[in-house]
Amino acid sequence: MSASDALESALPGLSEAVAAVEAELDRALSFGADGPERLVAAMRYMSLAPGKRLRPLLVVWSCEALGGSVQRALPAAAAVELIHAYSLIHDDLPCMDDDVLRRGLPTCHVAFDEATAVLAGDALQARAFEWVARRMHPESAALQCLRILATAAGAERLVGGQADDLAAEADDFPVERRRVEWLERIHLRKTGALFRASLQMGAVAAEASDEDLARMDAFGRVLGLAFQVKDDLLDCESSPEDLGKKTQKDAGRGKLTYPALLGVEASRERLAELHREADEALAPLGPAADPLRTLMRFVVERKR
Amino acid sequence: MSASDALESALPGLSEAVAAVEAELDRALSFGADGPERLVAAMRYMSLAPGKRLRPLLVVWSCEALGGSVQRALPAAAAVELIHAYSLIHDDLPCMDDDVLRRGLPTCHVAFDEATAVLAGDALQARAFEWVARRMHPESAALQCLRILATAAGAERLVGGQADDLAAEADDFPVERRRVEWLERIHLRKTGALFRASLQMGAVAAEASDEDLARMDAFGRVLGLAFQVKDDLLDCESSPEDLGKKTQKDAGRGKLTYPALLGVEASRERLAELHREADEALAPLGPAADPLRTLMRFVVERKR
Repeated sequence: MSASDALESALPGLSEAVAAVEAELDRALSFGADGPERLVAAMRYMSLAPGKRLRPLLVVWSCEALGGSVQRALPAAAAVELIHAYSLIHDDLPCMDDDVLRRGLPTCHVAFDEATAVLAGDALQARAFEWVARRMHPESAALQCLRILATAAGAERLVGGQADDLAAEADDFPVERRRVEWLERIHLRKTGALFRASLQMGAVAAEASDEDLARMDAFGRVLGLAFQVKDDLLDCESSPEDLGKKTQKDAGRGKLTYPALLGVEASRERLAELHREADEALAPLGPAADPLRTLMRFVVERKR
Repeated sequence: MSASDALESALPGLSEAVAAVEAELDRALSFGADGPERLVAAMRYMSLAPGKRLRPLLVVWSCEALGGSVQRALPAAAAVELIHAYSLIHDDLPCMDDDVLRRGLPTCHVAFDEATAVLAGDALQARAFEWVARRMHPESAALQCLRILATAAGAERLVGGQADDLAAEADDFPVERRRVEWLERIHLRKTGALFRASLQMGAVAAEASDEDLARMDAFGRVLGLAFQVKDDLLDCESSPEDLGKKTQKDAGRGKLTYPALLGVEASRERLAELHREADEALAPLGPAADPLRTLMRFVVERKR
């Protein structure tokens, strides 16, 4: 049984939640005659490609764990996936990670061209904010989500993490920074930023207390790190066929990773420790947080 | 007397308004320890480089023309300049317009590197939305400005205009589209989008009526077209020293421009016609709109 099938059987509502998210994404990616055809096709190509929809599911399940409805969470759920898709498109560019394969498909600049990939990413980012501003209610929740999402997407979080990640690959990167603390600083921002923002926005959509919002943020922090430790482990343990993208590429260019710094065994232990921390963060929420617990297990156990 | 000096003497409050805008920009571009140094330097490099600050001034003067204060308009004024700066950085990239000189300085990817230029643009866009969401009051005005700005920055406006502009340069661009209508479709979105959004946001900051908001939008439409006609005329009439960037580049690659389609004389006539339309749109606002009238004259008469 694949990790995805396991998640499906543990969460009977999963396919409905994914379908609701993808329908909202489709609406968010529908433009009138003013949206240039090729540009819109590139935006839809990466955003609607088969994916785990982890971040939107976090918005939905955080909202539901705190008593809110799926409907209330959907605009923010679509928005965070649009930001995620834009960051993948730009990270794959030749001047960045120079990847040709993503989610088993040619990357955006390969399928289209570089200029279109840059523009599609730019337009996806704008659409994410537009969607929350237009679709989320009440107005105070929309504005709070915009603050959370824009901060998470910016120089101090998502983009800052990618900038640090590129700096860490440079030949002149200081050897004293080749440590787990620096790696977690990068990942808390690069992967963690959107996970945390997703869980916070779900809490805002549910009009939760500040305490519950902080709890979701703490869970998001460990989930983001666990996701990255697992990603690094998969890169050094899988074949390209398993993963749907190039593997061993991290080791090939001396990239800062958990297995490179800690070794494979200690990386697996770090993953188990993060799993325990996640369960602790969610403990006070009871069974309503079960989907989030299952999702954490999925992140830890996934095969790709 | 240069056009800039002429504007200064016609508008005694100009340097104060520019100083207020630039102080707000400096605040918006200040980050704590979490903002990677090189990334933030690249963001500041293009955003704070000497520039006309046309878009922020439109926000401020639209707000003042409709009875609002400069202070109320500043967050949106800074935000639109951040969006403008990001679009310049990305438009200059080798895969887009491949420009090495901008505002008399090396472009961002030349002064830094391509990856940093992509990321700086991305982070500037996020910061623009974050700034309005955090700094603008009341909340309803902030949300309305976010809708206006995100729509203007997106696939149907700013980015869509750039995508169409690139398509128009391709060898297979249909000959029947080599017409003024198509050119204006591009520019209404590419340049016009942010001019219109600026004037609308100024009206929102002043809590103006829908009628006054529509009036500002109409003025923004003709101002944006006039700006582009003038840009095209400057490109074919000036030297690189006058302009602070490469000239004759449009003709060199068969780019769709007003002079190329209409000839230089008819382009000048089109500019005069747009000037008249702008004055008509502003007529009902009386002397409070004088700075906007002066600005329109500056756009039409500028030498660079």
